[in-house]
Formats: sequence, structure tokens, C-alpha cells
Amino acid sequence: MSALPIRRGFDPADPVFRAHEGGKLTVQASSPLHDAADLSLLYTPGVAEVCRAIASDPALADRYTTRQNTVAVVSDGTAVLGLGDIGPLAALPVMEGKAVLFKHFADVDAVPVCMQTGTVEQIVEAVTRIAPTYGGINLEDISAPRCFEIERQLRERLDIPVFHDDQHGTAIVALAALRNAARVVEKRLDDLSVVVSGAGAAGVAVAKILLAAGVGEVVVVDSTGVIAGSRQCLTPHKQELAALTNPRGVTGGIGDALRGADVLIGVSGGTIAERDLLAMAPRAVIFALANPDPEVHPTVAARFAEVVATGRSDFPNQINNVLAFPGIFRGALDSGARSITEPMKLAAAEAIAALVEEPTASHIVPSVFDGRVAPAVAAAVAARVSGSGRPTRLGYAEGSGRSA
Amino acid sequence: MSALPIRRGFDPADPVFRAHEGGKLTVQASSPLHDAADLSLLYTPGVAEVCRAIASDPALADRYTTRQNTVAVVSDGTAVLGLGDIGPLAALPVMEGKAVLFKHFADVDAVPVCMQTGTVEQIVEAVTRIAPTYGGINLEDISAPRCFEIERQLRERLDIPVFHDDQHGTAIVALAALRNAARVVEKRLDDLSVVVSGAGAAGVAVAKILLAAGVGEVVVVDSTGVIAGSRQCLTPHKQELAALTNPRGVTGGIGDALRGADVLIGVSGGTIAERDLLAMAPRAVIFALANPDPEVHPTVAARFAEVVATGRSDFPNQINNVLAFPGIFRGALDSGARSITEPMKLAAAEAIAALVEEPTASHIVPSVFDGRVAPAVAAAVAARVSGSGRPTRLGYAEGSGRSA
Repeated sequence: MSALPIRRGFDPADPVFRAHEGGKLTVQASSPLHDAADLSLLYTPGVAEVCRAIASDPALADRYTTRQNTVAVVSDGTAVLGLGDIGPLAALPVMEGKAVLFKHFADVDAVPVCMQTGTVEQIVEAVTRIAPTYGGINLEDISAPRCFEIERQLRERLDIPVFHDDQHGTAIVALAALRNAARVVEKRLDDLSVVVSGAGAAGVAVAKILLAAGVGEVVVVDSTGVIAGSRQCLTPHKQELAALTNPRGVTGGIGDALRGADVLIGVSGGTIAERDLLAMAPRAVIFALANPDPEVHPTVAARFAEVVATGRSDFPNQINNVLAFPGIFRGALDSGARSITEPMKLAAAEAIAALVEEPTASHIVPSVFDGRVAPAVAAAVAARVSGSGRPTRLGYAEGSGRSA
Repeated sequence: MSALPIRRGFDPADPVFRAHEGGKLTVQASSPLHDAADLSLLYTPGVAEVCRAIASDPALADRYTTRQNTVAVVSDGTAVLGLGDIGPLAALPVMEGKAVLFKHFADVDAVPVCMQTGTVEQIVEAVTRIAPTYGGINLEDISAPRCFEIERQLRERLDIPVFHDDQHGTAIVALAALRNAARVVEKRLDDLSVVVSGAGAAGVAVAKILLAAGVGEVVVVDSTGVIAGSRQCLTPHKQELAALTNPRGVTGGIGDALRGADVLIGVSGGTIAERDLLAMAPRAVIFALANPDPEVHPTVAARFAEVVATGRSDFPNQINNVLAFPGIFRGALDSGARSITEPMKLAAAEAIAALVEEPTASHIVPSVFDGRVAPAVAAAVAARVSGSGRPTRLGYAEGSGRSA
């Protein structure tokens, strides 16, 4: 996510409000409707033939309905940007914006589905009930730890891709950036010691993908301190983190975790004091991704690290989910994937990283407007789906050779 | 609904299948996204200002999101066209077609929501949970009698318009047609004796709107016979019908009901024998609306009635819901209506009827492609919403003077 601005208040003349007037999406017919002949093809009586065919062979729905190109962007508005629990109505502009990005970058037809919040079971039940309409489900801005269980249950119950972007989109782009940052500082991924600050949706997913990618050591820190098996009263998902991470059993605060660390990835929304950064290893890397304000201001971070990245567009190295999710879904939809697997996520990260041929300290990720990104991600993701040898709707990507 | 064709089977080269390839809808961004400046307006950081404003004042969602122009076309696929319970996937082409019509005729952005079926409570719960996304709910092709209870509960729980088109769309257009048919046969609405054949979604709604419009006598006949208070084992909605209709306490079959009747409205899906039509009153009216085959073939009906209408586009007087639902929702959305009331439905029927200035036996309803229809219906509906003096998005309609 990008940074949030200072609060400006409601002003209908503000360009932001003018750009949102009437909402940001429209629905269009993809076939012309001019006369009774068109009507009889697109609606009754003709449509009945299509209904009958799909009733006989449900697989035909992929070909003769919008389903296979339609993704629901589902939120209950409980963890929107850095704004917290603002509810489904106030979350709608974000989900519409997400749909605009899906369309622009990957020609995916995405529709917002903003839900009244409820228990994990209620959200899972509602999404499951409406799922036949969609080719994929993008979960968005749902509070942790509910988001973990909601995603887990939906993945179990549905045979279409389910992807919680706040977790996996962030994790994929962070991994892509880290791959190239490691090249810049001339360290191997499996030698890195990484501290993840934040154990919410993004922190958990970042920690897991780094381990899956072979990063040497991952230590996660939450607002209470380092997550370790020795800590009391851990929630189930933090118990899982404790078991997977922190092999040396570090205890204490963020300063203790950062002693000798090569990399700090901040996804916490908090701030990190300069004194805690003093003991990081030489040639360190800092990704300060919190919004609206990075955990460490990039000019401060640059005093302690050779490579610095944020979520902001006004500094170098913008780590933004839009590098991942459009291509992920494009690849999954076009390959007929029934879920987004770990190998697909790792392949997406490699494809993003590979688009920066010669990484430098100020250029570790492609621009979000680099038109090669979504096709490269889509092709890499589709290639990890067994039995899929088809090109994606965006074609095979140039420059994605390293990921193939 | 129009008539269904004979079954042709699945043939990818058939024009019907070619017209449905890839589905019939796309989602488009209504604002341009070219560069980082656009991105920061439409998505982060700019969008956060809009979210904050809506969180402070939820009414702003109508202005700054798609909500106020978006209608969910909700179905569980249990009663699709004349095809029956074919499930949500096979229902999707119909819901997409409906969305195409919403857009074409009234510039409403409609999105299909096809649900796994379930109990009344489960459907109501799912629709209620996703309702914050939409400005209105169009229920479609849900089996009776579940559809009555689902609509009733949703109307009670939601503060946006909920409209079951199979009931009310059919009823509104039938009433519009009957107003003009009565003019042709020179009878007054309050003198008419009307027999409704069918007590499903459409039959119940037709009977109720005729009574609300002041029709003299309504008798409903189902597959068992005339619905009367004396009949045993009536379901709750038929008990309600028995209490509202059949004031003379007619018993027996359709032939008994039709003795001396001025009007037959068939919405049953069955057939009606010629001998049952013999005793209808002089200058009779027959609307045979069943699909795929009218209850009485129009050439047969013409031997017993002066005015004949069907649901088919290949005979005169096509009674098609598309004359009603686009304008109904346009008017409701533009006027900020929180429900579709009985006066709004009656006004819609009057507006449709008024567009035929000099009705004749072969011209009692406007063409579905008459561009005046949706604006006239929208204006008439909006005028019935208290406090609404605004023009609708389609403007004030010409030729709708009689309905104002």
C-alpha cells in the first residue's frame, strides 16, 4: 500500500473527491443490444439454450459466462488501509480502486463485495454462498487474526483461488524486493538474518514466504516484543510463528532482535527508534512499509542501511501490492488454477524481481506502471499450475526468462 | 419473460453461443488511470480521504461510491425461466442478460450475484450481509413459495429497495396492459372480473396488484382448482390469496372460474383447454404469458377474446418485464427511495399504459425498445417518493403526463 496523506477533511472541490464522484466503476455490456434480434440472442429466448448447456455441463460456465474473468474483492471494512475498522460502506472506495487496478493492469473484471462484519463463520458462510458467481476471491482489509481463519476455511471450502492480498500480495512484493536488495548488498538469501516488525496479516505472511524462499533466519517482533516459544499467552497464529521462526530463541524487544540483523522489514504501523537500528549488520537493508508513516523515515533509515524501501511513491523503491495481485489472478484464472499455491507465490516474486536486470540501491523493484510486470507475473504463476501450457490472456511476457 | 425456443442443444457455432462467449458484461473504470498522479487520486493515498469522509458521514457513500447506481441481481437458480431448478451457475447467463438490460434501458450498473441455494434464512442472511455494496436488490428466478418469504424478510431488514421481478415486474406490466385492454373493450377496471391462472410468484403478485388498482373481482386458479376459503390444506400464501380474492366463493376448476369472466391472465406454465374459454364474457381479454408455450396459443385465444397478449416477441402485445424493472430501479435510486411501495408500482403501470395514446386490440403496450418507457417509469416512480422533486438520471419523460 502507498502512504496515506495528512488528513485534509471533506471538501467537494478537492481533486480527490472530484475523482471519486459517482464512484469509480461502471458495468458495460460486452455485446451490442440494438434490436429485438439482439435481445433474443442475449436474453430470452436464446439465453435458455446457454442455461441448458451449462446445466448439463457446468464446465461450460467458464466459457459462456463472465465467471472465469470475474474476481470478487471482498471486505468487511475492519482493517482498511491505516484507518482501522471503518465499516463496509467507508471501505467501498478502496475496493472500487482495487477493481480499477485489476482492470487496468490485468484486464480482470473485479467487483467490490463489501459485507457487514460478523464472526469468522458468518463471513465464510456468506462468501461461500455467493462464490458460484466468481472465478476468484480477493480478500481485502479484514482484521487479523480473523483474516487467517477466514482465508483458511475459504481455501478449504471453495474450488476457486482465494487470496488475501494484505497478506500475500505484500509478502510476494517484499520477497521480490529482498531478492534484489540482497544482490545489491552482495549477500545470499540463505545467509540473511531478517527481522519482521509486525505480526498482523502482512507480518505473518512475510515471515512465512521468506522461510519458504530459503531465507536463513527470520525473527518476528510484535508490540510486546520478540515472538519466541518461551513467551506466554501467544495467540494460535503467533504460536505457529514462534515454532517456525526465531531459531536462536532471541528474547526482548526490537533492539535485541535487530542486533546483527541484515534486514528489517516493518509492517507494523508503529515506529522504530534510531537507537534500535545502531547494531544492525553492515550493509543492512530496511523496508519500512507502514502507512501512513513508515516505521523509520527513509532519510533516517539511509543512515543505517544501504538499501531502503517504503510503500510510498515519493521515495525510491516503492513496495506496492499492485506489482503482484493483478498478475497473480490473471495467471490463476487463465490456467484454471483452483487455488493460489506457495510455488505460485514464489514464482510471482521471482518474476517481479527478474524484471530489474541490474538492481541498485535505489532500484530494486520495477515501477508499478511497468507494463511488463503483470504479464510476467501471470505467465510465471500459470506455469506453476499443473497441466497448464496455455499462454495467459496477457500473452507470454518478455523479460520474464529468469522466472521460467 | 419472452418465450423459450425449442431445444437446440450445445453448438459452439450457433449464434446464441457465439453471442455469449466470454460472458456478456465487463467492468470498466469510470475515471482514467494513466500515471502515478491518477493512482494517488483513485487509490492510496487519496482514497483514504474519501474513506474517512464516508466513515464520518455514511450518506456520502451515495455520492462518492458506485453504490447508488449499483443493483445486485440475486438468484439461487431455483426457478430459471421455464427451466426450473438449474442451479446458480446455469442461471448466470440470465442474470448477466438482466444486467445488460438494466444498463441499456436505464443506465443502472447491475451485477449478477448467483448463490448456492439454501433455506429462506440462509438466503436472507447472505443478501443482508452483502447489502452494503448495493443501492438496490433485484431478486430473480427464486422458487415459490420461498421467494415470498425471502422478499418479505429482506424488505423488513434492508433500507434499500428490494424487488422480486418475477412477481412485481410481471404484475406491473400485466396491469399496464390490462388498463389499455379495458379501454379497447370499453369496460371499466372496477367492473372487470379477472381470472388469474397460476398461483406462483407471478400469479400472486398479479392478483394483488389488480386488487390494489381497483379491479372489480379477481379469482385465482392453481393446478388443483379455484382458490377459495373453503379449500383444505392451503399453504399460507394461498390462504392469504383466498382471503383477498374470489368474493363470490366460486369453487371447481378453471372452466368454472372463467364462466362469465372478462379477463383471463395465464401465468401458470400449463395449458388451458378451449372448452374452458367458451363461457367467457363478450369482448373478453386473454393474456397467455406462460413460457415457453402460452397457456392458449394466440391464434386460438383470438377466437374467444377481442384482445390477446403473450410474452412472445413474435405476436402482438408482448408483455415483458423489461418495460418495468429498468425504470423502476432508476426512479427508486434517483429518488433515494428505501423501498418499492405499492403506489410506486401502480404509478409505473400507469406510466407504461399512458405511453400508448390510442390503444387498439393489437397495440396495448409500448414496444420494449420504445425509448420513452424507462424515463417515464422512472419519473412516475420517483414522483411517488415523498420529498423527491428531483429529475431522474434519465430526465423527466415526455408523454408521461397522464401518470404524473
